Amino acid sequence: MKILIINSGSSSIKYQLMVMPTNEVICSGMIDRIGLETSNITFKTASNSIEEILPIPTHKVGLQKVSDLLLDPEKGVIKTTSEIVAVGHRVVHGGSYFSDTTIITEEVKEKIKELSELAPLHNPAHLVGINVAEEIFSDAKQVAVFDTAFHQTIPVEAHKYAIPNFLLTEHKVRVYGFHGTSHKYVSEKAINYLDKNSKIITIHLGNGCSMSAVKEGKSIDTTMGFSPSNGLIMGTRAGDIDQSVIFYLVKNLGYTPDEVNSILLKQSGMLGLTGYSDLRDIESKAQEGDKDCKLALLMNAYRIRKTIGAYAAALNGLDAIIFTAGIGENSSFMRNLICTDMDYFGIQIDAGKNQIRSKELREINSENSIVKVLVVPTDEEYEIANQVFQLLEN
Amino acid sequence: MKILIINSGSSSIKYQLMVMPTNEVICSGMIDRIGLETSNITFKTASNSIEEILPIPTHKVGLQKVSDLLLDPEKGVIKTTSEIVAVGHRVVHGGSYFSDTTIITEEVKEKIKELSELAPLHNPAHLVGINVAEEIFSDAKQVAVFDTAFHQTIPVEAHKYAIPNFLLTEHKVRVYGFHGTSHKYVSEKAINYLDKNSKIITIHLGNGCSMSAVKEGKSIDTTMGFSPSNGLIMGTRAGDIDQSVIFYLVKNLGYTPDEVNSILLKQSGMLGLTGYSDLRDIESKAQEGDKDCKLALLMNAYRIRKTIGAYAAALNGLDAIIFTAGIGENSSFMRNLICTDMDYFGIQIDAGKNQIRSKELREINSENSIVKVLVVPTDEEYEIANQVFQLLEN
Repeated sequence: MKILIINSGSSSIKYQLMVMPTNEVICSGMIDRIGLETSNITFKTASNSIEEILPIPTHKVGLQKVSDLLLDPEKGVIKTTSEIVAVGHRVVHGGSYFSDTTIITEEVKEKIKELSELAPLHNPAHLVGINVAEEIFSDAKQVAVFDTAFHQTIPVEAHKYAIPNFLLTEHKVRVYGFHGTSHKYVSEKAINYLDKNSKIITIHLGNGCSMSAVKEGKSIDTTMGFSPSNGLIMGTRAGDIDQSVIFYLVKNLGYTPDEVNSILLKQSGMLGLTGYSDLRDIESKAQEGDKDCKLALLMNAYRIRKTIGAYAAALNGLDAIIFTAGIGENSSFMRNLICTDMDYFGIQIDAGKNQIRSKELREINSENSIVKVLVVPTDEEYEIANQVFQLLEN
Repeated sequence: MKILIINSGSSSIKYQLMVMPTNEVICSGMIDRIGLETSNITFKTASNSIEEILPIPTHKVGLQKVSDLLLDPEKGVIKTTSEIVAVGHRVVHGGSYFSDTTIITEEVKEKIKELSELAPLHNPAHLVGINVAEEIFSDAKQVAVFDTAFHQTIPVEAHKYAIPNFLLTEHKVRVYGFHGTSHKYVSEKAINYLDKNSKIITIHLGNGCSMSAVKEGKSIDTTMGFSPSNGLIMGTRAGDIDQSVIFYLVKNLGYTPDEVNSILLKQSGMLGLTGYSDLRDIESKAQEGDKDCKLALLMNAYRIRKTIGAYAAALNGLDAIIFTAGIGENSSFMRNLICTDMDYFGIQIDAGKNQIRSKELREINSENSIVKVLVVPTDEEYEIANQVFQLLEN
């Protein structure tokens, strides 16, 4: 069964054509800078790797171009668009409506639209992608996979804020959590590997960073809340901060709320602390002795360590911690820093195993470590394809 | 040595005259509603208990009235004001300047004034109290005891926010922490009782609520940050909340930042969740089956449990948790809820011991509990007097 995965942003579309259940990627690529004269399209198959710069005025023109390439007698991989059984759309915000992967109907689109208020940068762009895909791949089932769905199992004492009740009931202000597809994927991989329904903490460290406490395969808490802005320290996002700082910046320093929001999202985190947002730069500067970089790494790791402790309390136990995503999979330095002085929790990594670079799930704890420490490469596209496949099979 | 303790608020002065080092309170009381026609003054000694309603236009008139009562040949307890060797002033915000109790000089007053920007409701009122006490008790040493001082040992990775560096260096935005006098007092009592320099978590649950991780007698982390608004759920304060909620309320619901701040400080917390701010009401409603009250208590306890876990990570160990202040000392219900499902941390309370009401330090953990669970009644006035005494003796 061929499934096309689409991640439609405000000026880009990432796509991947997969054969399920064999999990074979037969084509992938992206369209970038939609609306500009210098739009960029990439298209990669086993035998071809194409990159073109040309004007792509709209998402529709872009996806039509992808379809043309897929159908191209020489470079293509399908004969008719009807070979594509389903299009799986990544959708950031499913609110409290969607706790599962869902076939897209007019009603579902209405809900995604309604939730644009909570995800103004993402949901409108996803809707554009959905509408365009419905036209171009009209024989395919359109399916939505929500970033928030995995966290819908978080119990009310963990997803409600201590603010007046009407803000939840009338205005939907609560913890939603994000990166759900990744937390779900890596926690399932880990449970499968550990061969028991363990108490697990997943640590997704990429451009965005979040953690999740997973009990019997279900998310029971996560660090990102109402939006993907709080919790851990990220590349340019502050993560958790005393809210009084916002009022202080507005009242005493004359910033507008929009400016403060922009500072906290775009000029904070590792960038605000060091001048760099890429962790590799920060690590190498720290090794050269840069004090700001050293401190920023320490702050970052300290917050993650505290969250491991907090989630061990939420789980009343801890069997494994899982590192995933760009930084989690590749930075042995950060993994080591996070696992230092955690022997009270029975967390101890093996320095040698921690250095190994691999695309495979691996165990990096020492023999004596009570808690398993795993690195599990995430694969959100595969997880989306798999969820679509499961939905259509059942 | 007679020491007068003063806590000067915007329209009130609390006072207590103590003899040190015997810790005898020879007089206590307060002046309330300063500036109104119906100001209220109380004055209590071993032999007298006076309460008067009369106009007290200024702090100076109020403190002069206290002085007159102290000197009164019949009701008083001193013969001349020069018997009062020192006046200890509670000062909420000492910023990064003061990590210890300090004799007040013009320079110190300047710093307290400068810090009014960070504590606009408190520091200006403290300054008024200091200036008035200097006039009326001119022979006494004036000493400031700062709520923030105990937390000045919090290391930079725990007191810095992940925001642009200039906000710390130029605008002093960082974690200060509050309730320091209480956290210091109860952690010292506990260390004395446990007879070792333990890894301790202090849980101050009163009108305001905060926790502190204490290592070798020093605060290494605390839940309140830049102001006393974040961290745990309080009577009317929300505590921690995803900052994006603030921007959402401003942008989508049309609130001003001031209104949002007011909602988070005065209409949130237990009040926002239940309609009640007094924990005793909420507990009794919960026992009658009120769902909002049950949930609010659960949310409150859940956040405290997570912070215990977080601080166990920060400490890389845990020897004891300490309950103190109004709720911490008196609510066996909350203590039980907090310690439920914490056996992973070796925390187990004894149901019988937990029910005992007492003004004494007591151990309420079960025999098998690995972590000691103590109730330590706080005494901020004594701690202030003791710190003043220690300063003058050394």
